[in-house]
Amino acid sequence: MMRFLLEPVVRAALLEDLGRAGDITSEAIIPADARVEATIVARAEGVVAGLDAALLAFELVDPAVAVERLAADGAPVHRGAAVAAIRGRARAVLAAERTALNLLSRLSGVATATRALVDAISGTKAKIVCTRKTTPGLRALEKAAVRAGGGANHRFGLDDAMLIKDNHIALAGGVRAALERARRHAGHLVKIELEVDTLDQLAEALASGIDAVLLDNMDPETLARAVAMVDGRAVTEASGRITRDNAPAIAASGVDLISSGWITHSAPILDLGLDVAG
Amino acid sequence: MMRFLLEPVVRAALLEDLGRAGDITSEAIIPADARVEATIVARAEGVVAGLDAALLAFELVDPAVAVERLAADGAPVHRGAAVAAIRGRARAVLAAERTALNLLSRLSGVATATRALVDAISGTKAKIVCTRKTTPGLRALEKAAVRAGGGANHRFGLDDAMLIKDNHIALAGGVRAALERARRHAGHLVKIELEVDTLDQLAEALASGIDAVLLDNMDPETLARAVAMVDGRAVTEASGRITRDNAPAIAASGVDLISSGWITHSAPILDLGLDVAG
Amino acid sequence: MMRFLLEPVVRAALLEDLGRAGDITSEAIIPADARVEATIVARAEGVVAGLDAALLAFELVDPAVAVERLAADGAPVHRGAAVAAIRGRARAVLAAERTALNLLSRLSGVATATRALVDAISGTKAKIVCTRKTTPGLRALEKAAVRAGGGANHRFGLDDAMLIKDNHIALAGGVRAALERARRHAGHLVKIELEVDTLDQLAEALASGIDAVLLDNMDPETLARAVAMVDGRAVTEASGRITRDNAPAIAASGVDLISSGWITHSAPILDLGLDVAG
Amino acid sequence: MMRFLLEPVVRAALLEDLGRAGDITSEAIIPADARVEATIVARAEGVVAGLDAALLAFELVDPAVAVERLAADGAPVHRGAAVAAIRGRARAVLAAERTALNLLSRLSGVATATRALVDAISGTKAKIVCTRKTTPGLRALEKAAVRAGGGANHRFGLDDAMLIKDNHIALAGGVRAALERARRHAGHLVKIELEVDTLDQLAEALASGIDAVLLDNMDPETLARAVAMVDGRAVTEASGRITRDNAPAIAASGVDLISSGWITHSAPILDLGLDVAG
Amino acid sequence: MMRFLLEPVVRAALLEDLGRAGDITSEAIIPADARVEATIVARAEGVVAGLDAALLAFELVDPAVAVERLAADGAPVHRGAAVAAIRGRARAVLAAERTALNLLSRLSGVATATRALVDAISGTKAKIVCTRKTTPGLRALEKAAVRAGGGANHRFGLDDAMLIKDNHIALAGGVRAALERARRHAGHLVKIELEVDTLDQLAEALASGIDAVLLDNMDPETLARAVAMVDGRAVTEASGRITRDNAPAIAASGVDLISSGWITHSAPILDLGLDVAG
Amino acid sequence: MMRFLLEPVVRAALLEDLGRAGDITSEAIIPADARVEATIVARAEGVVAGLDAALLAFELVDPAVAVERLAADGAPVHRGAAVAAIRGRARAVLAAERTALNLLSRLSGVATATRALVDAISGTKAKIVCTRKTTPGLRALEKAAVRAGGGANHRFGLDDAMLIKDNHIALAGGVRAALERARRHAGHLVKIELEVDTLDQLAEALASGIDAVLLDNMDPETLARAVAMVDGRAVTEASGRITRDNAPAIAASGVDLISSGWITHSAPILDLGLDVAG
Repeated sequence: MMRFLLEPVVRAALLEDLGRAGDITSEAIIPADARVEATIVARAEGVVAGLDAALLAFELVDPAVAVERLAADGAPVHRGAAVAAIRGRARAVLAAERTALNLLSRLSGVATATRALVDAISGTKAKIVCTRKTTPGLRALEKAAVRAGGGANHRFGLDDAMLIKDNHIALAGGVRAALERARRHAGHLVKIELEVDTLDQLAEALASGIDAVLLDNMDPETLARAVAMVDGRAVTEASGRITRDNAPAIAASGVDLISSGWITHSAPILDLGLDVAG
Repeated sequence: MMRFLLEPVVRAALLEDLGRAGDITSEAIIPADARVEATIVARAEGVVAGLDAALLAFELVDPAVAVERLAADGAPVHRGAAVAAIRGRARAVLAAERTALNLLSRLSGVATATRALVDAISGTKAKIVCTRKTTPGLRALEKAAVRAGGGANHRFGLDDAMLIKDNHIALAGGVRAALERARRHAGHLVKIELEVDTLDQLAEALASGIDAVLLDNMDPETLARAVAMVDGRAVTEASGRITRDNAPAIAASGVDLISSGWITHSAPILDLGLDVAG
Repeated sequence: MMRFLLEPVVRAALLEDLGRAGDITSEAIIPADARVEATIVARAEGVVAGLDAALLAFELVDPAVAVERLAADGAPVHRGAAVAAIRGRARAVLAAERTALNLLSRLSGVATATRALVDAISGTKAKIVCTRKTTPGLRALEKAAVRAGGGANHRFGLDDAMLIKDNHIALAGGVRAALERARRHAGHLVKIELEVDTLDQLAEALASGIDAVLLDNMDPETLARAVAMVDGRAVTEASGRITRDNAPAIAASGVDLISSGWITHSAPILDLGLDVAG
Repeated sequence: MMRFLLEPVVRAALLEDLGRAGDITSEAIIPADARVEATIVARAEGVVAGLDAALLAFELVDPAVAVERLAADGAPVHRGAAVAAIRGRARAVLAAERTALNLLSRLSGVATATRALVDAISGTKAKIVCTRKTTPGLRALEKAAVRAGGGANHRFGLDDAMLIKDNHIALAGGVRAALERARRHAGHLVKIELEVDTLDQLAEALASGIDAVLLDNMDPETLARAVAMVDGRAVTEASGRITRDNAPAIAASGVDLISSGWITHSAPILDLGLDVAG
Repeated sequence: MMRFLLEPVVRAALLEDLGRAGDITSEAIIPADARVEATIVARAEGVVAGLDAALLAFELVDPAVAVERLAADGAPVHRGAAVAAIRGRARAVLAAERTALNLLSRLSGVATATRALVDAISGTKAKIVCTRKTTPGLRALEKAAVRAGGGANHRFGLDDAMLIKDNHIALAGGVRAALERARRHAGHLVKIELEVDTLDQLAEALASGIDAVLLDNMDPETLARAVAMVDGRAVTEASGRITRDNAPAIAASGVDLISSGWITHSAPILDLGLDVAG
Repeated sequence: MMRFLLEPVVRAALLEDLGRAGDITSEAIIPADARVEATIVARAEGVVAGLDAALLAFELVDPAVAVERLAADGAPVHRGAAVAAIRGRARAVLAAERTALNLLSRLSGVATATRALVDAISGTKAKIVCTRKTTPGLRALEKAAVRAGGGANHRFGLDDAMLIKDNHIALAGGVRAALERARRHAGHLVKIELEVDTLDQLAEALASGIDAVLLDNMDPETLARAVAMVDGRAVTEASGRITRDNAPAIAASGVDLISSGWITHSAPILDLGLDVAG
């Protein structure tokens, strides 16, 4: 991600950890001019993401800290692999350490979870996509981590595409009315997706014309029938409690996309640590 | 949490979702004066946390939205339980929905994970405490969620207590030197904790005097010996890859605290949804 | 627009005018408890837009000021028409006056200019759309003013749709390569538009498949040929120094959209003033 | 303008265009290491202003982009003249392009409009001054652009000088009472100007003593009489729907200043573009 | 001061005291629904200032807290006088207490110090004015406190008036050159003051014409001669280590203004406390 | 202090002084390329503090300004001593001058006042500590200045330690109940101090166990008795209208700490100025 866009997020994260007084332990104990060489090391197997944000934490605390990437976002790493080298004043490196690792391990966790789902459906044409169920404050970074893990991005917010859900349909008085109003207001570069719960709704949507359909909580057989009904006239997205176990069968139904909230809202972190050279 | 402190976090989360143009789907489809009654409902069993933040999302989007708490932070909920009622303009309710749920489900996830660990060690004197391995930007909210789940809080950042770790010891030239410098700089309301990897280090720390010791990655037997050595002269904290499975044995060692990064960095969310009345 | 999104813009505009010391003239001359009734009046014919922002200026300075809309965004007004009534403490009303009028007159100017172009092509199927050539800091407000004037919105920024221009094509090594890379990276809800300067480029784009084409600086005859080539397979947008004079001929070519930077970057304001009752 | 003061404005403008995800078109299509050499070129005749702000946009996105001024603020340029050269990573240059041009073309439009009025009254002693009818958020930049165009600045906001208008006079109960209160509260470095609609009011103001008088909406003959009445005892400012056509006659009346809202609120932009070398 | 301008300062002050976790003592000890009635009481004699800011602290923490002014800014108070009453939730009142008192006691200290100087020169025509030697972040509030104490304000910053000092004169090559350049650039509502160290410089300044002269570090006799030389052609300001002791003699020299940095940079606070009813 | 934490404070202070238009005097008079060499010089004897913040002011205005420390925070300086050298563009140096000096002289004033109290009790075991009675917005900087003056820090805010005062005790229903609730909620790294007004309260506190006691407004004899009662079981802090005169007797009572609000809320500045070389 562009450093310009990362900076406000990393700055806020640092301030949250440094508080009013900064790292009082290091300032008490470590001489001001002590220097360290450190390495960020994976403590488990996974996929790295968020290196730009993590390394920016060191640079913001002290522009004189030198950082070197030893892996790239999206790279698979094994336990023990070094992903970045950090050199600089010990106080600065330790002051940024936790913020950097919190960012890196969470975003790598998202990438690792995404990669696991992507691998589970390899050989099919389906792609794994994320949702808006992201960590408040970290959406753009998590979306980038999903890409690093081999996934694709859904819309970034409420304002960059239309996704018509059950409540919209109910309040509009039906699929047709909802779609008509959406199309009337949508700019020519705004796509419209509709969430359907039944094949009847799907038929109604297709009759009105639609860019994409979100097939919610359907079993693989129903999904296959939906895909057949759509017949290439819209992008098809399967959704609803996707796991590594059920993903292959869902992908086999022929859908274009499988969306998962789990990869952003519940992925465990990838464990990474900072090793300081003796 | 005090609303004054929550507001910047919730405001930023809303802006992230609303982008430049706001909820273009609802504005296209839903009449400006349509109103809804909605309920936030648990879709799984767990412990609720973060209600203040979640409900503030609705109020910030539209102060005229009425919110009612049906559960309190820390309350155990069953699948299907209603935790809050929301009434107001449909556009406002839907614009805030995802932000509110993202906050609530993540924080309830933290509380639920904490409660699981707390329950696992019930009957012992040990308490579950969190770490600084929190989500960037959400630390204070996650610390409150840990309390809602029955846990206790470790320090909030680098500035409100001293935690002397291996790197500090190495750069100071030993436990004694590190402790002496720490004590010289620490204000009289600042406690000092020391991370020890061996019982020899522990002996050295106790000889110098210390408020708390973090016993890192020790097995239950070593922990028990450490507790015996400490003999009430310091708070004892066990740390390192705590799980629901190994927590009881660790607690049985007699430590005062068991710290877990997992409850904040890797807890899955508690699934909650917004049901809109017909 | 949603008040939540307007507030930061209006707040910054007020701070810019009030400086450090506030309205020193009114505080010197007007008693603290003096009250006024005032009316915002159009001093020329046009279309109103930006009322939410303008009235918010009064409310932010003093929540006790009462504002009443006498016209709605998008309403055509004649010279002398009252568009809003303001009642409250004289110091507060005068402190917000210029900020409110600066917002309202500029946004109404955008709506008025848009309406003029919309009227110029009435009877054709073409729609007037805006560009990213907006006033720095006011993009979302100007986009809303364009809609109030009867126009439609292009993308809101660099991140919500892809628009492939000459530089992209040159750096990619051709239309086909550029389109292929774009399609590979674009999320399923991201549309892709391509700027073409010649009918050969258009043919190449159509062969690859494209959501929309921006036909740059073509005369009406070439546009008509382009529209015929496209034959409904993509949205067609004519662009380049659109005026009220040349718009009808361009619209007659059959394009779907005519984009104008002028309506946002060079529209004169609609003159509006605040009349204070005696 | 001082870079320190420009930075918040330019940063906000960039964020508005880059949104959450940045320039998705360029990131999809252009290799990360591709570089460009580009030139900002005038596409019409006018006066340049705002170069500092425009070039800062490139530097903020990527400090490694090299920018070179080929013209200075205030310089008259012909169609085709290069005003700045930009060299750096293609993605960075294109990400900042529109923000830079939006700032530069608007501010150059202000300078160009100012220069046109200045030229229209050359040979008289009158100066063109701006008003507070500026673009919300851009006041200081537009004031600098007015100076670049050969004009002078009126007060910057409500807090740095007193301008007593009709509403103040009415609420104070007359010119004399208003002036007396103003003088009592004004610091010794705060000047006081009074808006007068009639020569009677002018006489009253002069009797009380005043730094400057704003002669509102008077015809050239009345203005000449006003100037004679003032006889050097106050600065005289003519105001009210100034155009290039009526400005010479107004200037010939002998007023010191002619103020124009049009040069900031309704000046069309100066068309400028970015040419990327092959 | 206008609440709109106070709010950012008070908000920042509260955040500084509340930190990440808020008032942990009160939240541990005081029931959430306990209420208090409290009074802000002067513990010494002085002049009150800053009540708006102080009371806003309570309102920002909890809008339900009721505040009542029992004195006004500028009012002299005796030891034991109640200046405001506060009623509301105990946790909210105590959370805002220190921030409110820090603001109120400092600003009242400024007003009290100002009043002491004002009283010291009563009977002369001189006025006490402040300088730019104010507390970083609190300038506008301290300027208002100076007015509350009976003093007047100098310029608010570097941008609202010109003050030509020794370094400007040296870099310009003399008083005349400096004044000429200043006059050429100054807007018609910008006053120009010149600092003079000798009567020769004063003569040079008067010959060029000047709005005000700052007579720096002159003894009363020299000041009297300077006042005679000026003879009403400029405002005269005496400056330099003003104390209550030397102020009367300086005022007797006939100067218009006596400026004091001490009243803002070194005034002791006025002691005020919060008494909570039993 | 860490530059990262200083920057927001210094930036806000600069913006407050520069306003919208910046240093209009220097920009009018001083050529853009004029350079100066300047020295910050003490004009009185004292202790320096705040150099990092002061020098950052110059660097933020213009990164090309070179600053050199000639003294360190905490250094005693005599009248005439140079504490820093500044070289760079004259406009930049003068634009930052007042902000830099306002920060430096206030923080050096705090350090100087602290040092005076520290010296007054030399030879005793007592330490001087500060309070939360700091300047709004400058707390962390003033706390650092206290350390530079040889003092120690009390808690930084309401959230990093518990201090139980009379109101808490009253609302809890007694010392014991208050302490019990505090201990139940306090994290293991949070210390608890209790304010006691009488020896009876002290006895009750000691019976419950406590980290520190604030002995409020006791005379030296009572303090000595309190110290004897405590007998090393808690840190003892004397508080209440400490002056250089009464401090020695208070220190002689044997207390560990003497806290003073005066050193932060009422210390006069240390006079420092900027001398520009010819």
